[in-house]
Amino acid sequence: MNESLFTVNNLWILVATVLVFIMHLGFASLEAGFVRRKNTVNILFKNCMIIAIGLLTYWACGFNLMYPAETFAGIMSKFGFSSFGLALPEGAGGLIDYADGGYAYYTDFIFQAMFAATCCTIVSGAVAERIKLLPFLVFCTIFVALSYPITGMWKWGGGWLDELGFYDFAGSTLVHSVGGWGALAGIILLGARKGKYKGKKINPIPGHSMPFAAVGVFLLWFGWFGFNGGSVLSADAGAVSLVFVTTSLAAAAGAVGAFVVSHAMFKNYDLSMVLNGILGGLVGITAGADLMSPGAAVLIGLIAGAIIPISVVTFDKLRLDDPVGATSVHLVCGIWGTLAVGLFGSSAGLSQLLIQATGIAAIGVFTFSFAFITFYIIKKVSGIRVSEEEEVRGLDITEHEMEAYTPDLSNAAYELAPVK
Amino acid sequence: MNESLFTVNNLWILVATVLVFIMHLGFASLEAGFVRRKNTVNILFKNCMIIAIGLLTYWACGFNLMYPAETFAGIMSKFGFSSFGLALPEGAGGLIDYADGGYAYYTDFIFQAMFAATCCTIVSGAVAERIKLLPFLVFCTIFVALSYPITGMWKWGGGWLDELGFYDFAGSTLVHSVGGWGALAGIILLGARKGKYKGKKINPIPGHSMPFAAVGVFLLWFGWFGFNGGSVLSADAGAVSLVFVTTSLAAAAGAVGAFVVSHAMFKNYDLSMVLNGILGGLVGITAGADLMSPGAAVLIGLIAGAIIPISVVTFDKLRLDDPVGATSVHLVCGIWGTLAVGLFGSSAGLSQLLIQATGIAAIGVFTFSFAFITFYIIKKVSGIRVSEEEEVRGLDITEHEMEAYTPDLSNAAYELAPVK
Amino acid sequence: MNESLFTVNNLWILVATVLVFIMHLGFASLEAGFVRRKNTVNILFKNCMIIAIGLLTYWACGFNLMYPAETFAGIMSKFGFSSFGLALPEGAGGLIDYADGGYAYYTDFIFQAMFAATCCTIVSGAVAERIKLLPFLVFCTIFVALSYPITGMWKWGGGWLDELGFYDFAGSTLVHSVGGWGALAGIILLGARKGKYKGKKINPIPGHSMPFAAVGVFLLWFGWFGFNGGSVLSADAGAVSLVFVTTSLAAAAGAVGAFVVSHAMFKNYDLSMVLNGILGGLVGITAGADLMSPGAAVLIGLIAGAIIPISVVTFDKLRLDDPVGATSVHLVCGIWGTLAVGLFGSSAGLSQLLIQATGIAAIGVFTFSFAFITFYIIKKVSGIRVSEEEEVRGLDITEHEMEAYTPDLSNAAYELAPVK
Repeated sequence: MNESLFTVNNLWILVATVLVFIMHLGFASLEAGFVRRKNTVNILFKNCMIIAIGLLTYWACGFNLMYPAETFAGIMSKFGFSSFGLALPEGAGGLIDYADGGYAYYTDFIFQAMFAATCCTIVSGAVAERIKLLPFLVFCTIFVALSYPITGMWKWGGGWLDELGFYDFAGSTLVHSVGGWGALAGIILLGARKGKYKGKKINPIPGHSMPFAAVGVFLLWFGWFGFNGGSVLSADAGAVSLVFVTTSLAAAAGAVGAFVVSHAMFKNYDLSMVLNGILGGLVGITAGADLMSPGAAVLIGLIAGAIIPISVVTFDKLRLDDPVGATSVHLVCGIWGTLAVGLFGSSAGLSQLLIQATGIAAIGVFTFSFAFITFYIIKKVSGIRVSEEEEVRGLDITEHEMEAYTPDLSNAAYELAPVK
Repeated sequence: MNESLFTVNNLWILVATVLVFIMHLGFASLEAGFVRRKNTVNILFKNCMIIAIGLLTYWACGFNLMYPAETFAGIMSKFGFSSFGLALPEGAGGLIDYADGGYAYYTDFIFQAMFAATCCTIVSGAVAERIKLLPFLVFCTIFVALSYPITGMWKWGGGWLDELGFYDFAGSTLVHSVGGWGALAGIILLGARKGKYKGKKINPIPGHSMPFAAVGVFLLWFGWFGFNGGSVLSADAGAVSLVFVTTSLAAAAGAVGAFVVSHAMFKNYDLSMVLNGILGGLVGITAGADLMSPGAAVLIGLIAGAIIPISVVTFDKLRLDDPVGATSVHLVCGIWGTLAVGLFGSSAGLSQLLIQATGIAAIGVFTFSFAFITFYIIKKVSGIRVSEEEEVRGLDITEHEMEAYTPDLSNAAYELAPVK
Repeated sequence: MNESLFTVNNLWILVATVLVFIMHLGFASLEAGFVRRKNTVNILFKNCMIIAIGLLTYWACGFNLMYPAETFAGIMSKFGFSSFGLALPEGAGGLIDYADGGYAYYTDFIFQAMFAATCCTIVSGAVAERIKLLPFLVFCTIFVALSYPITGMWKWGGGWLDELGFYDFAGSTLVHSVGGWGALAGIILLGARKGKYKGKKINPIPGHSMPFAAVGVFLLWFGWFGFNGGSVLSADAGAVSLVFVTTSLAAAAGAVGAFVVSHAMFKNYDLSMVLNGILGGLVGITAGADLMSPGAAVLIGLIAGAIIPISVVTFDKLRLDDPVGATSVHLVCGIWGTLAVGLFGSSAGLSQLLIQATGIAAIGVFTFSFAFITFYIIKKVSGIRVSEEEEVRGLDITEHEMEAYTPDLSNAAYELAPVK
């Protein structure tokens, strides 16, 4: 491959890395908007630490666990836990070119590292407003350092699911439903927020800022161009442009699907449903974004969007309290998108559908078990839920000793009070 | 053309697509900031649906209407309304290369599709706080599916204005003033917000969040690098870098122009004027961003910025109530920028100026008539304005049954109230 | 160099320009979040004007001062103050290719211009909530037009520090500590905000919106990929990917360093410390981002993050009131990062360390003196501090006659009040 083409392929993956990075702000904004005012600092703090933990653990061991030189039967890396160390790899300028991959060694690392933290961010939203900070960060470290790279290796590291023919282009299952399974385990072990379910009654607990939620969704869509587009792993004009089209149309159709179904169900125009419908469409297209025609992408997105209000209501009926709808968006639509690879596009077929179901089930069982056991051990050791008083007062005051916003009368209050 | 150059040209248009996409968040933030708290969910909801409608209608018919293979005398497409359908176009990997265009078929589609929704977003801000949701979305669908691509074809699709020599590099007229004419039609048919004009008195109705308005303007400037830079339709180093310089300097000069003139007029430092001054500078340079020297760009931006406070005051004197100043920014500065192509830069000259005026007039007459008639029919059929009571209570509660922000006392209120 | 490689190199610097641009929104959000509600419009206004002033002065004289054709002994340009004028430079399409630089003339200008305004933005946060608007804008114009390009030329323009062997890859010293020295001069001459220090007591004055502060930090990290990555001045796969890795890991480690040290000091989880820790890590890696191994980057970031809470407390003990922590982030971590080039990585060594210290001292003495004298003259001529009454009421009302947010009861208040 000539130098120019290598450089442009590599450049696109780096630009995609930047776009995936900003998804972490998208998640932070979305989750901050969907929680109550009194837990806003807490969710922002968690999102800052998650990206830090994600990058550092991926540097320390995740990358080598996920893309190992040798494995045990495609299930585990033979030499995880070797870090990059303090010295530059040998070779010209610290660069190890991939013979035919079309991008640099460090490009590979940083693009993959940006993905890794995502699964924890998904958990973060679902367990918000009642989980203890430090135990949650311990869970994240373990989950992103071990669970995510192990199942990631099964497919993207050339493991047994890859050999089976499982297809997951950019991670409907490997990233999104992995996060969703972790979220589900957390929700079950934590229990619902105080006051959410009272006998047969479900009390909606509205988020404190819809503008921040909307900013989050737009930024996630923005970043998804890198998430899906970068997963082409080159700047190939035909492939990347197709992925842009399928990704955008699925998101747009997700909005429409959620709009129509939520209006039929609730007789109003529910912004949070449309926002999650967009995300559902994006998660849904992710597994097959490179295989679908524009029309198939519209269908996949439409169905994903329609799933959202139904799923949100169902989780509430099951008394599974998810403040931001992360399980509906990432778990349910992640499964839908992975199955859609067997139903639509150039890959459709019954055998492919069965393989997709196998991958979903295998990764689901492993991840849910891993997350459940990890959360369970932490719960036994240190507890994972804040006290009732802390929950009522809010985590911002009790864990962080600060508030997200100063009161509206701050002019008077902060000027006069501390002076005398 | 060699593969590397093709790939890098295509890549730039895709990256520009991502930048233009985020302008929709820019518009959403700006409009949310400039409306009252009680209508914030409504404006966010509309902006989510507009991007969805824009992409889907452009896929369904807009692209083929705007870039037709054959036309009736350069005025209408001979075969609009053919969708992409559910099957990938034939050819290697679903890709149809343009012989000498330097980018892929789907790249062309998605870049243009991101532009299409913009004109409706411009309308959205101007008619905010009093228009009914569903009728507005119906208007948007018709406007973006038919009106925008028809006049777009006159120039960018190689139609009669293109043959005449009309110049509009990235859409001062084709995008911005088209949105502005639609906004003007809506404003006239809707009437002013309750309480805005009382006899001879003009009551300012301040927006509820200046930070969101500022975020919106910075994001729009950010996206404009893709809007103008991507309109080069290649990654040509000289052309794109010049466009970046002229675009940035015009925006900067727009801020200065609005600062000076608004200070002279109002004797204060008006943030909303400076924000709209930046946008005015950006709209103003858009028609000739590739033709101007940096100095000419500064002049064009300075004048555009100076126009803003004068135009805002003038619209208010005419009792045309535009909550966000969209008509001043997009219509008035769009006209100014299109005329500036005949006054400055390599294209200056009287004959060019007359051609520019012809294009402005032709597109203005068509678009205003189309928008007026469409709004008028919808008004007769279903009404377009909410009831007085709904307007007073706010659209968030009446149309969406939710509020943009929970009250400051949410800690107590939401925790205690629903529990018992 | 072939056309394709030239185009891709140039494209990356343009994309990096866009990323550096959005750092101005990052600063605006961060500073708006960290000031009180009553001074929010003021800080947003300043940030809009700073980017405008920065771009226009860099066009008018900064670029030619910083990258002169001829100099006086590497200390001053021989022909500053020549503007680009209104005519395009001669040559094909207004483009002057650099023989071997790999990017276009205008690309060089616009990338550098985006850096220039940064130093003023850093000052803006530190002097917030008490400085008069117009005198501050006059200071900015002088500082960015003269001080920044003169010291910038010493290194990046090939001046005496460059010949000495001083190393500052992307501006830990040339950009960040330059801003920090300007901030320090302003803080000293202005004095602390009313009520901040009362005898021995330090009254914390919390910022009004932690979500905006967090948005600001994520956007700054996002933009830093362009700030550091673009400073490679080509799209070289090995160099840019390494810079992405070191930049990201240092930011992540900065969060961890600040987390651990601030928890040890304050016994809570302080979001503002973690946010500034991320920024500290980014500033710290900037001087040597292309020289460090990933492990060294982690160390540099960890130490930078640990410095933040210590530095913030120290400045408060010295009664130097910095509302946003700009001096800790940009000045202290800028010095640390510049020294780290002599301690870690391929450049480590005592002689390099001494050269780094020389550069820090020379630029520090020049910039602090320049800023102090400029502020001092302005203070004597027009005053730089608002009156006590204005400070208590807030700059939004007194300078801008508007508020950042309408009251929570806007529904009732704004609807009813102006109508009758």
